[in-house]
Order: sequence, then structure tokens, then C-alpha cells
Amino acid sequence: MSGSEIINTTIEDIKPYLNSCSEDQLLFVIDSEIQKNYLDTLKDLQKVPGKKVLCYISMCGEEAKSFSEYEKMVNFFLEKGVHRNSKLIAIGGGAVTDVAGFFAATVLRGIRWWAVPTTLLGMVDASIGGKTALNSTFGKNLIGSFHMPEKVFIDESFLETLPEFELKSGLGEVIKYGMINVPLGDFLLENKASLKEIIFKCANYKNEITQGDFKEKGLRQVLNFGHTIGHAVEKIYNISHGESIFWGMYLILSLYGEEEDKKRLITLSKKVGSGFESPPWKNKTFPISDIMNFISKDKKRTSVESVNLILCTKAAGAEIYPEKLTVLETKLENKKDEFRTIQIEY
Amino acid sequence: MSGSEIINTTIEDIKPYLNSCSEDQLLFVIDSEIQKNYLDTLKDLQKVPGKKVLCYISMCGEEAKSFSEYEKMVNFFLEKGVHRNSKLIAIGGGAVTDVAGFFAATVLRGIRWWAVPTTLLGMVDASIGGKTALNSTFGKNLIGSFHMPEKVFIDESFLETLPEFELKSGLGEVIKYGMINVPLGDFLLENKASLKEIIFKCANYKNEITQGDFKEKGLRQVLNFGHTIGHAVEKIYNISHGESIFWGMYLILSLYGEEEDKKRLITLSKKVGSGFESPPWKNKTFPISDIMNFISKDKKRTSVESVNLILCTKAAGAEIYPEKLTVLETKLENKKDEFRTIQIEY
Repeated sequence: MSGSEIINTTIEDIKPYLNSCSEDQLLFVIDSEIQKNYLDTLKDLQKVPGKKVLCYISMCGEEAKSFSEYEKMVNFFLEKGVHRNSKLIAIGGGAVTDVAGFFAATVLRGIRWWAVPTTLLGMVDASIGGKTALNSTFGKNLIGSFHMPEKVFIDESFLETLPEFELKSGLGEVIKYGMINVPLGDFLLENKASLKEIIFKCANYKNEITQGDFKEKGLRQVLNFGHTIGHAVEKIYNISHGESIFWGMYLILSLYGEEEDKKRLITLSKKVGSGFESPPWKNKTFPISDIMNFISKDKKRTSVESVNLILCTKAAGAEIYPEKLTVLETKLENKKDEFRTIQIEY
Repeated sequence: MSGSEIINTTIEDIKPYLNSCSEDQLLFVIDSEIQKNYLDTLKDLQKVPGKKVLCYISMCGEEAKSFSEYEKMVNFFLEKGVHRNSKLIAIGGGAVTDVAGFFAATVLRGIRWWAVPTTLLGMVDASIGGKTALNSTFGKNLIGSFHMPEKVFIDESFLETLPEFELKSGLGEVIKYGMINVPLGDFLLENKASLKEIIFKCANYKNEITQGDFKEKGLRQVLNFGHTIGHAVEKIYNISHGESIFWGMYLILSLYGEEEDKKRLITLSKKVGSGFESPPWKNKTFPISDIMNFISKDKKRTSVESVNLILCTKAAGAEIYPEKLTVLETKLENKKDEFRTIQIEY
């Protein structure tokens, strides 16, 4: 499976690509926040002579990924007459490219698509690698499909209107790349790169890994470092994805790593300016049963009794570590007092 | 893409396959009609030592393929704790294997599955080739995915409890195979084969074609002979799939074929004992605008203005014939009086 073509561009310069693509129908799915902030630019982008253009404005954020929103998008486009020689162009945050990508994967059993991520998280992670998804009431991304976008257009000027909360969320994933890939981590720690350079390094690294392991049978799984517990934290406290992943990595390293590994995580976090200081359970009860309950429904589990944890430690590098659920629970239990008082000093 | 392994067996003899499969969790999806008629056998089948077994009883028929039924199935299994090392076993008619297959394609971004078709249509067509689907209010199978079942188990004794209406529906597809594949058609016309032999010939033929063209970019499209208009007829009159496809072939041959082609269609229909005598619009208005309205939303269209018709004629063999919607409409209009009076004498 070949990866996506990652193109560094401005939103305006996508126009020639639209003009010359082979499809005769273009389906735009646009994040409502982006539509509001870039109205004229987006209106202009949709003027493509000789092609039928349809445009659907999607909710932004995780709510876009519900069954009912997906069904609404399906009905919108089917009613207007979609055919197989259509191309979908998804413009928005990770949630919007996730649901639009799933739509592209499943409408008429699959049409081609391009992604235009508009958040840092989307640029370095969500839009790269062809994982598309819906959420269920039982967890995030439990429904989905692998469907690679042909092209991913990155215009980092979208980040100028991105709320700080969202920017920090993206930094959580940037930190993760620094942990699972040592040269990339060292590059971040040198602190000479622009945000644009960082985005490209991360996007291309993910693109490379996912090319070699499209269906996540092997190497690609290391990208889930921090996600097993992170997704649970995200669900329980409704904090950003990237920050949740950061605490997911922190906890897993506390249980299975060395002090040195945790130190590198914190140094990276400081260097990229994430500002992650204390976890959402600070000075409250550490939510073990909620976490375990969530993990027991985690799709990365491959057996009834155990879960595949992803570990990135200095001693072992990146590895997939099958752990019994009961053992994981005991380990969390043993450290719950330590976890209640986590505080990173900046 | 390799095809499915097609296994001629009895329902009871599937047991050893379940015992020895590598997954530690089995998800059964069973057609409610089949569950009723084969209760004890199915209960026994689910006793598999050492594996966690979950069972969902699905509605039977096209209603099983709605968004809401799909969502219900998703929530049922997610609530009970599905993981990626699960195998789904779908037992039922074509609608049930379609929706269960789509579930297998999309839950956790894909798990492995087996199909046990229980209708003639399922055995010769729906369960073979990995097309999975949901219906939308705008048409059948407009949402879906390609996801090949690893194995298809065929036990033709299920046909003993199949309503005649359903059996005839399967015969419509058998006739289609006879039209698109001349040796298979000649085999049917020789009339020495048992139903069991006919089923295997058809299932293996479809399996072969779909192996070579999994995503329906080329040869596989010939399997849609009769389907462009047939699906419209099915939607408008709510008659069986197979009978609709028969009338779809009849109309398309009336417009683009020779008298000889239509004669072969009728001879095949008589030989397999379908009993298709007159179309549902007999002596009423031929529903041109409903048909055209439906086709304009057909997923096999690849451009705004035209549709790819599939033709199987003696002169040209099987071919894909792009036709302008306006031309097709005029051709139907010109023959509407002839179509009102179709009657096949048995």
C-alpha cells in the first residue's frame, strides 16, 4: 500500500489540483468552524469549471463522528446524486477528516479522497495513514475502515485561528513521535526547527510507517503508544486527545519504564511548550475501575483476557507488550497514591 | 486478492472448523427465520470449548440492512466486549450476510468472517465475493465495503425450508450466470444437473471472477447484468431481487440485444423453472420516470451525464456500455407500449 502524497501548500494553491483531477464531481466536506473563518477563500475554491460541486458543512469536533452525523452526510450526498467517479475533499480538524474519510470508504463501496487538515493534530496525525472512524457510545473510533487519502495538503497558516487548547492537543502527538523515534526526538530537543518543519517531519514519519503496515498488523501499532490508557483518560475527563495521550504515556512509563524514560517525556513536553502540568485526577481519586472498564472494550485487545500495551523505553525501544488485564489493574492500584500527586514543574 | 474457500458441508459439520480456528472469540449473527427453524442445531453449534461465544439474532430480509439495524448490531457486540481476535460467523439470507459482513468490515476497522448462506440467492450470489452493504432510503447497497469472507459454507438442505418466493429469487441470479457465461448457460440447458451441482457451479464461477477483480474495476462488473434497471424495478414494486434482475435483463436486451438473446433468456428461465411470466407493470403504465430517477442515483454511474450499462449479447459477449441517461430514457419511451404487454408462455 502506498502512502499519501503530502503536499506543503496554501489553501488557494489547491485549486490547480482540483482543476486537473480526473473526477467530474467534487464532494466537499467542510468543518463548520473553518467554513466560518475562511468563508470567501472556501467559496472561491469551489468554483471549478466543468465539474459538479457539492458541499456539506460538518459539525466540528468529536460530535461529527456519531452514527447520526454520518448518516446525515450519507443522505445529503446520495440525495444530490453521487456516483463513483466523484472525489471527496475533506477540510477540517481530525474529527471531520475521520468521518469524511469513513464516508469516502463506504459510500458506493469507496470513492477517492483528499484531506486538508486544519488543526495541528490533523496535520501530524489524524489525516495521515488512512485510518477513518466513527465513535460509538462505547468508545472512540470503534467503527472504521482503512482508506488512504490520495493526497494530504498541509497549509500551516490554518493554525493562526486554532484555539490554544487544540494546538496543545497536537503537541501531545508531536511529543509521542519524539518518544517513539529517537532521531525525531533529538531533532525536537535541538529546538531550532520551525513549527512548519516539525509538522513535516512528523507527517512524513507517520506516512512512512503507515505505508509499510497499512492495516496495523505490525510496526504501525507503535503509533498507539500512550493510547490504551490515554483514550480512557480522554473519555473519562473529556480533556483533549493530545493531552490524554501525554498522560497515557506518562502512566505506562511509570509502570513499565525507567526514570530516564519519564524524564525524556517531560523534557520533550517542556521543549515543545505543551504546558501539560498535572493530570485531571490531581488530588482526586485515581479512576482505576473506569480505566479498566474502558480498556476491556479497547479495540486493540486481541484476546479476552489481555491487552497489547505499546511501550517505548530506552532499554527496549518500541515494543508491543501483551499484558493480562488483571496484572495491569494491580500495577495501577499499587501506584495510585503516586499518581494522585503528579506535578510537572515548568 | 484471493477468493473465499467454498465448502460443501452440512451445518453440523462446521463445528470442527469452529473448534480449530485461531480466534478466541466467536460472534454469531443469525437470521431470525433460520434461528426459528433450526433452533437446536444452532444452539449446539455455539458450544465451542475454550472460546467466548456471542450471538446476535438479526432481522431477516432487507430490513436488516438499515442504518439503525446496523447500529443496533454494533452496540450489541461492543457492549459485550469485542476485540480484534474475534471471528464473525454470519448465518442467514443475503441481507443478513450483507449487513453482518459490513459489520465485520467496519467494527474495530475489520475482523475476519465466515458466511453460511441459507437462501439460494445467498449461496450463488450474495455471500460470494466480499461485497458487503447497507441500504439507504435512496437505494439498495449504497453504503458498503469490500471485505471477503475467508470461508463460505454451503449446506443446500437449508433450501428445504425456504419459501418458494425466495427460491425463485435465487433462480433469477442463476439465469443471469447462464447468460453471462455461455458454458454455464449450456450446462443449465442440458438439464441433467442437480440443484446442488448448479449451486456449486454458480458459486465457484462468481468466486473466480471476483478474485481477479476484487474491487470491481473491470470484469466483475459483468455480474451486474440486469441490475441497473433491475434494482429500480425491485425498489418500485417491491418484488424479489432475482425476479427484478430477470426483468432488468429482459428490458436491456429488448433495447440493445437481438431477438436471439431474449430467446436464450426465456429458454433459461423456463429450464430452471423460475415461473417468471409477466412483469409487475403488466397492463399498467410503464414507470419510466421512476426508473430514470432511480438510475440517476445508481452507484454504478461514473459520471454526471451517463451510466455504465452491462450487456451480454451473443454478438458482443459481455460488455460495459456507457450510455447517456437522456438516450436511455428515449429508448425506454419508444418501447413503452411493447413493455406493457410482456407475457412469457410456459
